[in-house]
Amino acid sequence: MVSQGASTWILQEERFDMAALGKCESVMCLGNGYMGLRSATEERYTGEKRGLFVAGTFNRFLSNTETDNEVSELPNGADFLEMEILLDGQAFSLAQGTIKDYSRALDFETGELKRQVLWVSPTGREYQLDFNRVVSLKNLHTVAQKVIITPLSSDADITISTGINGQITNSGSQHFAEGPKRFYDRRYMQLVQTTTHSGIDFVFTTDVSLSQKADTHITMDRRKISSVYKTAVKSGASLIIEKITTVHTSRDKQSEGLDTAALQVLALTALKEQSALGYEKIAYQSSQTWQEKVWDNIPVTVESANPADQLALRFAQYHLQIMAPAHDNRMNIGAKALSGEGYKGHTFWDTEIFALPYYIFSQPATALSLEEYRYLSLPGAREKAKLGGYTGAQFPWESAWLTDGEVTPLYGAADIITGLPTPILTGLIEIHISCDVCYGVWQYYTATGDEDFMERSGYELVFETANFWASRLEPGNDGKLHINNVIGPDEYKDKIDDDAFTNYFARWNLWLAMEYYDHLSQENPALLTKLDPFINYRLWETKAEQIYIPKPRTDGVIPQNQTFLGLKDIDLAKYKNQEHVGSIYRDYNHEQIGEIQVCKQADVLLLILLKEEAFTPAVKRANWDYYEPRTLHDSSLSLSTHCILAADMKDHRLAYSLFRRCCNIDMGPNPLSSNDGIHAGSIGGIWQCAVLGFGGLRLIGDKIRLSPALPENWKRLSFFSYLKGQKLKIDLTPDTIRVENLTKTAPVELEINGITHVIADVLEI
Amino acid sequence: MVSQGASTWILQEERFDMAALGKCESVMCLGNGYMGLRSATEERYTGEKRGLFVAGTFNRFLSNTETDNEVSELPNGADFLEMEILLDGQAFSLAQGTIKDYSRALDFETGELKRQVLWVSPTGREYQLDFNRVVSLKNLHTVAQKVIITPLSSDADITISTGINGQITNSGSQHFAEGPKRFYDRRYMQLVQTTTHSGIDFVFTTDVSLSQKADTHITMDRRKISSVYKTAVKSGASLIIEKITTVHTSRDKQSEGLDTAALQVLALTALKEQSALGYEKIAYQSSQTWQEKVWDNIPVTVESANPADQLALRFAQYHLQIMAPAHDNRMNIGAKALSGEGYKGHTFWDTEIFALPYYIFSQPATALSLEEYRYLSLPGAREKAKLGGYTGAQFPWESAWLTDGEVTPLYGAADIITGLPTPILTGLIEIHISCDVCYGVWQYYTATGDEDFMERSGYELVFETANFWASRLEPGNDGKLHINNVIGPDEYKDKIDDDAFTNYFARWNLWLAMEYYDHLSQENPALLTKLDPFINYRLWETKAEQIYIPKPRTDGVIPQNQTFLGLKDIDLAKYKNQEHVGSIYRDYNHEQIGEIQVCKQADVLLLILLKEEAFTPAVKRANWDYYEPRTLHDSSLSLSTHCILAADMKDHRLAYSLFRRCCNIDMGPNPLSSNDGIHAGSIGGIWQCAVLGFGGLRLIGDKIRLSPALPENWKRLSFFSYLKGQKLKIDLTPDTIRVENLTKTAPVELEINGITHVIADVLEI
Repeated sequence: MVSQGASTWILQEERFDMAALGKCESVMCLGNGYMGLRSATEERYTGEKRGLFVAGTFNRFLSNTETDNEVSELPNGADFLEMEILLDGQAFSLAQGTIKDYSRALDFETGELKRQVLWVSPTGREYQLDFNRVVSLKNLHTVAQKVIITPLSSDADITISTGINGQITNSGSQHFAEGPKRFYDRRYMQLVQTTTHSGIDFVFTTDVSLSQKADTHITMDRRKISSVYKTAVKSGASLIIEKITTVHTSRDKQSEGLDTAALQVLALTALKEQSALGYEKIAYQSSQTWQEKVWDNIPVTVESANPADQLALRFAQYHLQIMAPAHDNRMNIGAKALSGEGYKGHTFWDTEIFALPYYIFSQPATALSLEEYRYLSLPGAREKAKLGGYTGAQFPWESAWLTDGEVTPLYGAADIITGLPTPILTGLIEIHISCDVCYGVWQYYTATGDEDFMERSGYELVFETANFWASRLEPGNDGKLHINNVIGPDEYKDKIDDDAFTNYFARWNLWLAMEYYDHLSQENPALLTKLDPFINYRLWETKAEQIYIPKPRTDGVIPQNQTFLGLKDIDLAKYKNQEHVGSIYRDYNHEQIGEIQVCKQADVLLLILLKEEAFTPAVKRANWDYYEPRTLHDSSLSLSTHCILAADMKDHRLAYSLFRRCCNIDMGPNPLSSNDGIHAGSIGGIWQCAVLGFGGLRLIGDKIRLSPALPENWKRLSFFSYLKGQKLKIDLTPDTIRVENLTKTAPVELEINGITHVIADVLEI
Repeated sequence: MVSQGASTWILQEERFDMAALGKCESVMCLGNGYMGLRSATEERYTGEKRGLFVAGTFNRFLSNTETDNEVSELPNGADFLEMEILLDGQAFSLAQGTIKDYSRALDFETGELKRQVLWVSPTGREYQLDFNRVVSLKNLHTVAQKVIITPLSSDADITISTGINGQITNSGSQHFAEGPKRFYDRRYMQLVQTTTHSGIDFVFTTDVSLSQKADTHITMDRRKISSVYKTAVKSGASLIIEKITTVHTSRDKQSEGLDTAALQVLALTALKEQSALGYEKIAYQSSQTWQEKVWDNIPVTVESANPADQLALRFAQYHLQIMAPAHDNRMNIGAKALSGEGYKGHTFWDTEIFALPYYIFSQPATALSLEEYRYLSLPGAREKAKLGGYTGAQFPWESAWLTDGEVTPLYGAADIITGLPTPILTGLIEIHISCDVCYGVWQYYTATGDEDFMERSGYELVFETANFWASRLEPGNDGKLHINNVIGPDEYKDKIDDDAFTNYFARWNLWLAMEYYDHLSQENPALLTKLDPFINYRLWETKAEQIYIPKPRTDGVIPQNQTFLGLKDIDLAKYKNQEHVGSIYRDYNHEQIGEIQVCKQADVLLLILLKEEAFTPAVKRANWDYYEPRTLHDSSLSLSTHCILAADMKDHRLAYSLFRRCCNIDMGPNPLSSNDGIHAGSIGGIWQCAVLGFGGLRLIGDKIRLSPALPENWKRLSFFSYLKGQKLKIDLTPDTIRVENLTKTAPVELEINGITHVIADVLEI
């Protein structure tokens, strides 16, 4: 159970709970975009899930069997956090003895994890143990640990065993061949492991220092290197252990061209430099970087009657910072970020629809890097289109390394009735990802005006996704073009025809290609010549004209797909109030749910949120009133969409309750919610609820709109936003709006409550 | 800490000890020669090492790195023992709460493992838990578990999660690709995993039944399938859970030609049959088989003042029974049997020198199977000879699957000074294994007179090993032929020239080939024609004449090798009395030990034990007096050799103390001694001490000798022995000898205390 600590900067666990090990490991995960380190404890427990993930280091577990279902995934690297601590011969473990005082706390302000335990051993001796840990945001390769042990009852014999353990697997799949293990200068430990298929070297180097002399011996085991330190500590005195570790891989840009031996040297040199700084300096530098990059630069501040709101927004900004591999445009964000094995480190539409807005508005350079990843993935997307018999670029539903192409597994768990494995269809037919990628480009360009990116990459992405849609459309008996056999965002329904979300967006993708073509004809005809192989203007135009678009009924309701509105309507009250996701599955199986008017998330509402300008307020209202009651929010992605729309609808109570539910996806009481990692999309959603929903900052067509709708218990919301290269400070109260252009090199146009303002300096309303 | 239980049939752990998990898992290992199942507990603990090994299912972990040091090894199969037990919401774990009563006991008589715990949960509720488990000796594929849970304080809500978990690795190396997972009839769980390189399918099928109705749901995870059962149990009533599991692999002879799907069907059918029997019937059948095969058939019985002696002999017979893959002659015994990952399941000379005598005398059919393994390995041995530039058959120092050839790893742990990995030389130069294999053939033939085996396999093995030696000898400046750059049984010394053990045995190997040739010339000339390609009589003769044989000095001492007797002599008292093996390494490194007259085990003494007829009693005595004081018994194989010789020397006290030390290799107080598995060779040694040492049953030249020398505290020793196809019962007291020929189809010649007796019925002396 996690809760607020001493301030809204601090997320804490008050009581040690063996049943919630996985949750704390995930929600208190440390990282810096280069790596993510689950916050496993130094001592080991059954039920723990230790994990270290380095962005972009994908590998596929080798196999020679026909039943193979392995796909490229982010391998779980060696563990260096572990310390076996013997206190007077007794292994330190909170499963035994008595815990007199305990707290574990992650301080978002500094990025430091602290655990403090006052422990009485089974033999009755008392010890104070303080554990501090930081993954440096300043030096992306560095992890620092500091452990302080103070015997309180009597002098103590203390033995510490710690090193680097490469026996870690991804739930049993071992991605690494064992490489060299080295001791240097009888002090520095180094372990190399190499991914079996992609051949990426991981080099772990570590240095352990104690505050007093200790008998030391060094040991090696399979995939493992460690040192044992024995010493005696006076009662009341403290033994301080510092462990500084660096992580390097041959995938790092700086390592390009280096062989393993050279990488080992580079790593050792880096470790020596970092180790010379010591824990406190490393932690201080990292904390300073947190201030510079996030808390002094782009804080989201809320004055709420419920302090958990501010805590949640800091939680969101913290994780959005550590999940993004901003250092390398060959990488993107995984659905569980770098915080667990869930979804194998794969990138989904979650990036464009749920996370990207944060970066576009807050850290445009990171947004650019994420967009460039999609551009660099174009070869795989073209390959996927070709394999399906299409042209242009069809983006994989799940993406890993640039050249991996589609990495969605083919089979999931077995059907409990037939006992046979169920096929996973998303990689085959959840094709809206290609317009989501196009929407990402549009969002980025609209908010930033970054013409340079567009010329290098953006236009080509839009043209090539348009080409995919042009080839994907199928003629129907009605003389229209259809998109059949797909899955929309509402994954309760599969193999459906004319999904409103997909069809609308496909047409918009074609339109956008035409619009950008027209724009370039005016502004940059030379570029059009260069992009000529990707341009099929007449085809786009013809296809867009013929595409079947589900029209609103007379009551304004847009059919989610060809069959939805004809399905059975049942009383959903029981599931709407569910405490756990998926409760409807206790009463109905997937096939039966397919026959009911119920949505996991509402396709039509998401469409209306993302493309509001295409619909009248009456249609928006009609669909809200129809679909929201039929939506169970069984996707962690659903809550923010519906929160924002509820805010638009001025249903403050529902909006706020959806916001709280969104916060609770990871921070709530369910101890198992985040075992496989945090929910990157819903964390982007927490920020979206606040800034896009309550703050009302939105991209509508080619305009930027601000229409605040603060919840009743919020007295103030302020945040920073980059728009067209200008940094704005936006300060909102229930009665006032203040927008300050901090950059002041160009005025920014903003539509506020229906009136367009040009903000060169400060606007107060 | 393990000790004797209620009788000398029972090995027990009286107190739960987290620090000795690995030891109990090994010494209480269950098995049947087909599989070995480490006795891990149902509930999991950190520090445990769960393990299931199926004989002969070798696989090599794939790797594409230059630093690769992986070799073919026995993969650790899926775990099905685990049961997560929730008692009123509290996970059952002996790390928490209070243990009011505890015992864990392995009954050698029945092969059944029982654990009984009276446990008070952290919330103060009391429960009795009984765990029973058996690996069937009757049906080699079956494992049965029975768990009885009795809440004592109040009615209890009990939840059990159990299934098949394929996430297990060999210390982080994953040997399996994930295969199909199936539920059949919503009841039977099945998981398939396939070795990545050798492509062996493992099929685990299991059935769980409860004594009362329970809410059940089934779940799947990566490499994992399981069921959850929830039920309420009245205070004082018992919930009984039976879990019957079968293990099949595509390496099984009965599975030859079956594809995975067919094997799955076979496994399911087998499981249903076994499950229909239920736990008690399976356990009873297995226990009956133990009686028939071992305890009623070939018991070794001792009346000793120290009951631990009888316990140790039963421990030895138990493990010798479960370690031998008697069902399949393509398999042999690993140095750690099937009880752990140590030595990777590889077969060493331990089989021929330390384990084989037990089978030859007690279970000749098993001995035959082990000999046939060597014959079937001939292609690999020929390949190894050829690779080294030799002819004939050079057996690998470490063997795995028949076609694997040499599987000794190339590198061990790093040198702590240089930090670089140290090369492992045994696979390259510990070449005496080839004469050990020849010695195995000779032992088997001499004891059994099995001419059929010799004609099919034995003669060829002897001729081809002779051919290897003929090609391996190197001419020296002295006009003699030498064997340079080897490691003898004394592994303290490496890269040595003219090791007495190796040179004597090489000549004997050549002589034996000649002797068998002469024999066949008389008895079976037709066979000689068939074996002609392997016969080089003149060459053997010439080489044997010229081979350099280290002669006894005038004082009778035979130089262990060219340099040994010139090395430094130091006071070894401190290491002779060592409590832990390897204590000399605390003061000297390997290079320094190479410069001291100290033996890990004494090559010359082992030579004299195995080939006594070649040495005079005076030479035997002189070497005993010289070498034993210089021997640290730092090999688990050393103790039995020296115990037997001490018995020969009538040093009863030393003999008995070496016997006890031999018993304590696995059963002694060191909690870490057996973490990686039991010591198969020293377990053969426990039996050797008793039967070959104190009983004095020995093969001397072509004679069988009996010369008892019971320890002072033994009043009686009786055992059974197969000789020349006759089963003898041998009953010894300090004053009497009684030998009964039970088979009576042929008289058996036995030299007893210098006099040859022909025993057709009963002899009493």
